[in-house]
Amino acid sequence: MSTQALWQKAGSEMDAELMAFLAGEDVLLDRALLPFDLQASAAHARGLQAIGLLTADECAQLCAEMNALGVAFANGEFVLDDRYEDGHAAIEAWLTERLGELGKRIHTARSRNDQVLVALRLFERAGVDRVISQLKALITLMLDRADAEASIPMPGYTHLQRAMVSSVGQWWAAYAESLIDDLQILISTRSLINANPLGTAAGFGANLPLARDQVAAELGFERLLLNPIAAQLSRGKYEMQILSSLAQVLGDVRRLAWDLSLFSTAEFNFIEMPSIFTTGSSLMPQKRNPDVVELLRTAPAPILAGLTELQQLQSLPSGYHRDQQAGKGAIVRAFPHTERVLSVLIKLLAALQFKAEPMRAALDPSMYATDLALELTQAGVPFRDAYKRAAAEWPEQCADREPEASLAARISPGAAGRPELQRLRDRLAKL
Amino acid sequence: MSTQALWQKAGSEMDAELMAFLAGEDVLLDRALLPFDLQASAAHARGLQAIGLLTADECAQLCAEMNALGVAFANGEFVLDDRYEDGHAAIEAWLTERLGELGKRIHTARSRNDQVLVALRLFERAGVDRVISQLKALITLMLDRADAEASIPMPGYTHLQRAMVSSVGQWWAAYAESLIDDLQILISTRSLINANPLGTAAGFGANLPLARDQVAAELGFERLLLNPIAAQLSRGKYEMQILSSLAQVLGDVRRLAWDLSLFSTAEFNFIEMPSIFTTGSSLMPQKRNPDVVELLRTAPAPILAGLTELQQLQSLPSGYHRDQQAGKGAIVRAFPHTERVLSVLIKLLAALQFKAEPMRAALDPSMYATDLALELTQAGVPFRDAYKRAAAEWPEQCADREPEASLAARISPGAAGRPELQRLRDRLAKL
Amino acid sequence: MSTQALWQKAGSEMDAELMAFLAGEDVLLDRALLPFDLQASAAHARGLQAIGLLTADECAQLCAEMNALGVAFANGEFVLDDRYEDGHAAIEAWLTERLGELGKRIHTARSRNDQVLVALRLFERAGVDRVISQLKALITLMLDRADAEASIPMPGYTHLQRAMVSSVGQWWAAYAESLIDDLQILISTRSLINANPLGTAAGFGANLPLARDQVAAELGFERLLLNPIAAQLSRGKYEMQILSSLAQVLGDVRRLAWDLSLFSTAEFNFIEMPSIFTTGSSLMPQKRNPDVVELLRTAPAPILAGLTELQQLQSLPSGYHRDQQAGKGAIVRAFPHTERVLSVLIKLLAALQFKAEPMRAALDPSMYATDLALELTQAGVPFRDAYKRAAAEWPEQCADREPEASLAARISPGAAGRPELQRLRDRLAKL
Amino acid sequence: MSTQALWQKAGSEMDAELMAFLAGEDVLLDRALLPFDLQASAAHARGLQAIGLLTADECAQLCAEMNALGVAFANGEFVLDDRYEDGHAAIEAWLTERLGELGKRIHTARSRNDQVLVALRLFERAGVDRVISQLKALITLMLDRADAEASIPMPGYTHLQRAMVSSVGQWWAAYAESLIDDLQILISTRSLINANPLGTAAGFGANLPLARDQVAAELGFERLLLNPIAAQLSRGKYEMQILSSLAQVLGDVRRLAWDLSLFSTAEFNFIEMPSIFTTGSSLMPQKRNPDVVELLRTAPAPILAGLTELQQLQSLPSGYHRDQQAGKGAIVRAFPHTERVLSVLIKLLAALQFKAEPMRAALDPSMYATDLALELTQAGVPFRDAYKRAAAEWPEQCADREPEASLAARISPGAAGRPELQRLRDRLAKL
Repeated sequence: MSTQALWQKAGSEMDAELMAFLAGEDVLLDRALLPFDLQASAAHARGLQAIGLLTADECAQLCAEMNALGVAFANGEFVLDDRYEDGHAAIEAWLTERLGELGKRIHTARSRNDQVLVALRLFERAGVDRVISQLKALITLMLDRADAEASIPMPGYTHLQRAMVSSVGQWWAAYAESLIDDLQILISTRSLINANPLGTAAGFGANLPLARDQVAAELGFERLLLNPIAAQLSRGKYEMQILSSLAQVLGDVRRLAWDLSLFSTAEFNFIEMPSIFTTGSSLMPQKRNPDVVELLRTAPAPILAGLTELQQLQSLPSGYHRDQQAGKGAIVRAFPHTERVLSVLIKLLAALQFKAEPMRAALDPSMYATDLALELTQAGVPFRDAYKRAAAEWPEQCADREPEASLAARISPGAAGRPELQRLRDRLAKL
Repeated sequence: MSTQALWQKAGSEMDAELMAFLAGEDVLLDRALLPFDLQASAAHARGLQAIGLLTADECAQLCAEMNALGVAFANGEFVLDDRYEDGHAAIEAWLTERLGELGKRIHTARSRNDQVLVALRLFERAGVDRVISQLKALITLMLDRADAEASIPMPGYTHLQRAMVSSVGQWWAAYAESLIDDLQILISTRSLINANPLGTAAGFGANLPLARDQVAAELGFERLLLNPIAAQLSRGKYEMQILSSLAQVLGDVRRLAWDLSLFSTAEFNFIEMPSIFTTGSSLMPQKRNPDVVELLRTAPAPILAGLTELQQLQSLPSGYHRDQQAGKGAIVRAFPHTERVLSVLIKLLAALQFKAEPMRAALDPSMYATDLALELTQAGVPFRDAYKRAAAEWPEQCADREPEASLAARISPGAAGRPELQRLRDRLAKL
Repeated sequence: MSTQALWQKAGSEMDAELMAFLAGEDVLLDRALLPFDLQASAAHARGLQAIGLLTADECAQLCAEMNALGVAFANGEFVLDDRYEDGHAAIEAWLTERLGELGKRIHTARSRNDQVLVALRLFERAGVDRVISQLKALITLMLDRADAEASIPMPGYTHLQRAMVSSVGQWWAAYAESLIDDLQILISTRSLINANPLGTAAGFGANLPLARDQVAAELGFERLLLNPIAAQLSRGKYEMQILSSLAQVLGDVRRLAWDLSLFSTAEFNFIEMPSIFTTGSSLMPQKRNPDVVELLRTAPAPILAGLTELQQLQSLPSGYHRDQQAGKGAIVRAFPHTERVLSVLIKLLAALQFKAEPMRAALDPSMYATDLALELTQAGVPFRDAYKRAAAEWPEQCADREPEASLAARISPGAAGRPELQRLRDRLAKL
Repeated sequence: MSTQALWQKAGSEMDAELMAFLAGEDVLLDRALLPFDLQASAAHARGLQAIGLLTADECAQLCAEMNALGVAFANGEFVLDDRYEDGHAAIEAWLTERLGELGKRIHTARSRNDQVLVALRLFERAGVDRVISQLKALITLMLDRADAEASIPMPGYTHLQRAMVSSVGQWWAAYAESLIDDLQILISTRSLINANPLGTAAGFGANLPLARDQVAAELGFERLLLNPIAAQLSRGKYEMQILSSLAQVLGDVRRLAWDLSLFSTAEFNFIEMPSIFTTGSSLMPQKRNPDVVELLRTAPAPILAGLTELQQLQSLPSGYHRDQQAGKGAIVRAFPHTERVLSVLIKLLAALQFKAEPMRAALDPSMYATDLALELTQAGVPFRDAYKRAAAEWPEQCADREPEASLAARISPGAAGRPELQRLRDRLAKL
C-alpha cells in the first residue's frame, strides 16, 4: 500500500503482512461501493454547508471533484487498487491532492463507521431495486405462459409419484405466485434497510447539529437510523435480512431447476431446451447435459453461505468491532450472483418448450381416481366411503378418461379449471 | 398406534418400527396445532355448507362436536397421544365416533396437505402476534428507561476500547430502535404468511367450487394462497421467513446479553442484578454467576438451528414430499422458546440497575479527544489537522472535563444531546 | 423443583420462571446421561480412595449406593424429574439421603463442569460405538448384495442423463465404500473424544494429587484431557466433531434415499419395496407413497441443525460459560435419531428388490457410445478423434449391443468388470 | 472464450452469457489446481504407458510438455485465463498445439470428472500438509511459552467472573493442547482424502485395465477410491471433512482471539501488543484498536460459510451432477485463508506480552475460597460442609494469600502445580 493509513501515526512502523491482512479484500470490494460512497459524501458536504461548516463555494468544489472522481472511476481512468487502504481513503486522497486544506474537511463529523454504512446501504438498495425489476419481468413472463399454456395437460406429482392431472399453466402460475411472495419479501426488506446511518459517526453521534434529515432526503432514505448505537447494531443485521430475502428468491429458482432437471431426464422427457443450454461430456460422445439447469439449482448455496458467514460475526457486544467488516464480501457478491442467475433463468424460461405428447402419455388412469371419489361425494357418498370405492373401482371407471375433462372439472379457486390469474396480476401490480 | 391409518388398506401389514419412524414426533407436535386444526376444520365445514355439500344442520353438528373436542382437549379430558397417527386423524376419529356417516364428510375436498398447512399458518400467526405483543412491551420499557436514564454517563466503546462518552439512555434507546426494526420485520412476515392454503387439497385443487374466500375471511386471512402448487411451495418457505424473523429478534437479545455479560464482570462492574438472576458454583464457594444472561446470549442458537434444518429440506422439485413434514418441529418449538426468552428478558431488564459511579470512574480523559477535535473543527481547523492536534493535546486539554458537558454537546440528531425519542415512539405507534 | 440447588444460599429467593429457564431441558436430557454420570462417579470415588480421601469401606458404600441408584433408574423405580435441578443433583441427593455425611464427600475435588463433561463423553462414546456397529452391519449387507447382484445391468447416469451401462452391484458397492469412509471418520472421532476430563474441576484443576490416570484407565479413556482449561475448550468442540461425523453418515443415507426416491417413480420404475415401507394418501385413493424413503432423505437435517446450534455457541473467550450447556440437547438427541435412521435403512435395504427388466429396457443404444470410443482408442485412434467418430457412429454401431458385454469389458480396477470387492472387505476388517 | 469447448459440436451455437455462467470462476480457481492437474496428468500418461497405450517415447514427450507448461505457468509466461474453458482444457490445448495427434491421447480413459477430482485431492493434501506444518510451529511456540511463563499468576474466570488463581502457563498450555486435538483431526482427514480417484472416469470406470495402483503410488495416495460411483460420492463429502477440520482449527483461533480482545480492554489490561497489530480511528484521535485480534476472531466465518455452501449442494442422487462443481471455490479459498490466519497468529503470539502486575492486582481474595474449601476437605470436613464454611470464612481467611502458593498447591495432573507438559510434547511427537 503506497499511501499512509489515515490513522497512522508518523514514524510508526508498518508490517506488510499485517497491512495485507487488515486490508483483506477491502479495495476490491470497495470498487462496488465507491460510486455510492461518492454519492453519500456529496450529500454529506451539502449537509455540512447547511450548518455553516462549508461555504457554498467550498461545497461546490468538493462536489465537483467527487463527481470528477466518479467519472474517472466509471471510465477506467481511475483505478481503485492497493495504493489505497480502502475506497474511503481513495476519496480523501483524491480530494486532498486536488483541493489541499479543503479536501481535509470532507471527513468532518464523520467516521468510517457511518461512511461505510451509508455506502453499503445505497449499494444494497440499488441492488435490491435491480432484483425487483428482474423479478417483475420474470413473473410477467410466467403469468403470460400460464395463460397461454393453461390447457396443456401435465402429470401432477406428490412424493414424486403420479397423483392427479395437472396442467402446464398451473405449473407456471405456481412459480409466478411464489415469486410474487419473494417480491413482497424483498420490498419489505427494501423498506427496512432504506434508513440513513450517516451522521451517527463512530457510534456516538457528533458534537454538531448535523442536517441528518436533509441528507436522508437527498439520498432517498425513508427515515433516519436515529440512535448512533442502533446504527452500528444494524450492521450485519440488515445485511442478513437482505441475504435471507435473496435466498428466498433463489430457493424458488432451485425448486424450479429441480423440476426442469427431472423433466429433462429421458425417463420423464417433458421438456425441450435449445442446445445452448446444454453441454457435452469430455468422455461420453453421445451426452447432452443440462448444466445450466444444474447450476441454477445451486443458486441459493452461495447466498446461504454468506448468511452463515454473517451469522458467525454477530455474537458480539454492541458498538463497532472490526469483525463486522469481515462480512462485506458476502453482501457485495450477493447481488451480481443473484442478477446473473435471474438473467439466465429468464433466458432459459423464454426458450423452454414443454412436450405435450410425452406428458399426456404419462397420465395413467390411476390419476383420475380422486376425480372419481369427488364425483361420488357430490352424489352424496360420504367422502371416506367414496375414497374406498374409488380405490377399488378406478381401474375400471377411469380407463378412458381424458385429461381435459379432469382439468375443466377442477373448479376450486386457483385450480386448473378456475385459475383466476387476474388475482395474481392485481397483487403484482399493487406491490 | 391403536387406530388404523386413514389411508391404510384393509388387511395390509404394519410394522411397529416403521410406523413409529413415520409418525416421528407428529402426535406430540400436533398438540400445539390441534386447536388451530379444529378452527380451520369448522371453517371448512361452513365452506362446504356454503356450496351445498353440507346442510346447515349437518354443519352445526360437526362444528358442535369439534368445539366439544376443543374444550375436552383444553381441559385435559382428551389427550392427543399415540393412539392416533396425528392430530388430523384424531379429529376425524372423534367426529366419526360421535356422528357416524356425517363425521366422514369433514374431509371432503380436503387433503392432509392443505389441512396441515392451514393449521400451521393459524398457529404461526398466533405465535407471531404474541411475540409482537412482547416486543411492544419490551420496547416501551426500553424507551421509558432511555428517557429516565438519559443523563447518566457511561463509557462508549468501539473495538471494546474506550472511545467516547456515552449515556445509559443512549444504550437503552439503541436497543429500542433495533427492536423496532425487528417488529417491522415481524409485521411484514405476518402479512406474508397470512394467506389461506385451505382449499388447495393435495396440491392440485378440487373438483368443487369451494368457497375459499369465505373460509379465508372467517379465518382472518388477508388473501388466498391461490395456486395449489404454490400453496405447497410455501411449505417451509414461509416457515423459514418466520424463523429468520425470530432470529433477528433474538440476535438483538444476544447482543444485549453480551453487553450485560461484559458489564457484570468485576473488571467492568457497570450493572447490578438481583440475585435471582444469578447462580452459584458447585465447587467455588464465593461465586455468583450471571447464568440467566448467558442463557439469553444463546437465544438465537436453536432458531438458527431450526433454520438450518428447514434449509436442508428445500432442495426438492415442486409438489408435496414427506420431507417437508420433517421441519414441523423447528417451527412448533420456535415460539415457546422465543416467548420464554422475551419474558425472562423483560423481567431482567425491569430489575437491572446501572451503577453510575463505576461508569463515571471508567471515563478517562482520552475519551474527550474527539470532542476536542470537533471543537477545533468548529473553530475553522480542517478536520484532518484538528484530528492530529487533538491526538497530541488531549492529555493536557481534556484532563478536567466532565461527561455531562460532553453529552450535552453531542447534538447531532439521535445523539445523547438530542435523542429525539419521540421519533421512535411515533414509529412504534405506526407499526 | 422441590430440592434446593446445590449452590443456593440459605434464605435466598428463587423465582419459578427463572428456575425453569435455567433448568431448561436439563432433567430430561440428563436421563440419557445418568448411567454414565454414575459410572464416572464410581470411578471418581475409587480415585479418591487411591489418594486416601476415602477409606475402602467408604468408597464401597458410595459405589454400592450409586449402583443401587443405577438399578432403580433402569427399572423405573427412580424417576429423574424436576424434583431435581439436574442429574448431578439427583445423585448427590440420593447419596446424602442414604449415607449422610459420607454422601457429601463424593463431590470432593470435582465441579459440575468436569462432572458433566465426563458423563457426556462416556455417553457419546457409547453412542458412537452403537453407530459403528450399525454401520458395519449395513456395509456388510451392501457388500453381500454387491456380490450377489454384480451382473444385473442398470443404467448409469450423470447429470441425471443416461450415460453408460452400470450394474446393481456397482451401486451397492459404491455406498458400501462410501460408508466405509464414514466408518473411518467415526473411528477417528471416537479416538479424539475418548479422553478423560474428570479431575479438571471447574477449569483450573484441584489442590489434590488426583489419581487421574487410574480413573481414566477404569473408564476406558485413551488419554487425559490434561490441561483444565483445555478440557473446557473441548466442550462443544468435540461435540461438533461428533455431529459432523454423523452428518457424513446421514449424508450418504440422503443420497441413497434420493436414488430410491427417483428409482421408485413410475418413470424410472427400477425398484420394488414391500408395502410396509409406503403409505397412502388421505385424498387420492390410488396412491402409494414412499414416505419411508423420503424421511430417510431428511436424515441429515436435524444433525446439521444441531451443528449450527453448537457453532452458534462457540464465539466465546476461554473458560466455562453457561452458554455451552445450551448445546446439550443437540448431542443427546443426535444418537437416537441416527440409530433409528440406520435401523430403518437396514430393514428397507434388506427388503429392497431391483427390477431387472425395466432397468434393461432403459439401456438405450447411446449408452454404448463410450464403449465404442474406447474400442477405437485401443485400435490406435487418438482419443479425441475416437470421441468424434463414436459421437457420429453410435446409432449404427451400438444398436444391438448387450449390457453384459459392456459390463464385462469395464476392466479398470473397481469397475463392473473387475469390482475387487475383497479390497473393501479388507479395508473394513482393518478399521 | 476463444477456444471451442472440448465437447462442443461443430456448428453448434454458443451464447456468451451462458458460457460465462457455465464457466463461473473455473478459470480463476483452476490456477490453484493447474500444477496438480499436470502432476496427475503425467502420472496418468505413465499409467497409459504401463498398459501399452503409449510408448515410452510418447509418454516422455507428453510428460516433457506438461513439465514445460508447469514451468511456464509458474514463471508467469503462461497465463490461465478465459481463453480456456477451464484448466483441463488449457492442458489439452497446450499438448495438442505442440504434439498434434499425440496430445489428443492424454485424455484416453479419463473424464473431466476424475481429472478434476484427482487435481483437487492433490491440491487439498498439499494444503492440509502446509496447515499441519503451521500448527506444529504454533503448538511448539505455545508449549515453550507455557514452560517459560508457568509461574506468572493470572486470574482464572468462569462465566467471565473471577473464579480461581490460574497462570499464564496454564493459558498457553490449554491452547497448545486444543490445537494438538486439531492436529489430530487434520491428520485423520488427510488420511481419509488421500485416496486416488483417477481411473474412475465419468463414474463408471473404463474399458481398459488401467494401472490404477501404479498411478496411486506415484502420486502418494494411500489407497484407491475403488468404486467409480463411490469416487463421485466423495466429491463434496471429502471437501466438507476438510472444511470441518479447518473450522476446528480456526474455532480455537477465535476463542484465543476473544481472550486477547478481552485482555486488551482498558478494564482487563492484561496484555501488550506492538503497535503494528493495532490501528487508529478515522474520527477519534486517541484510539488504538486491536483490529488484528478482531479479524482473527472472524477466522472461522468464511470456512463455516464454505461448509454451508457445500452442505447445500449435497441433496442429490448419486452420480456426477454439475452442482458439485459449484463448491470448488469454497475449498480452493479455504487454504490461503487458513494459512494467512495462522501466519498472522504466530507473528502476533510471538510478540505478545502479558502484564504481570495488572493480572496480580485482579486476584482478589475471593479467588482463594476454593483453596480454603479443599484444605478443609483434606482436614476431614465433608466437601459440602467445607464449601459452606469457605463461603462464609473466605473474606477473613483469604485476605493475605499469595497466588504463588495457590498455584503450587494445584497438584492435580495437568493443573498449574503439575502441568506435565511433557505429555503434550510426547503426544505431539507421535502425531
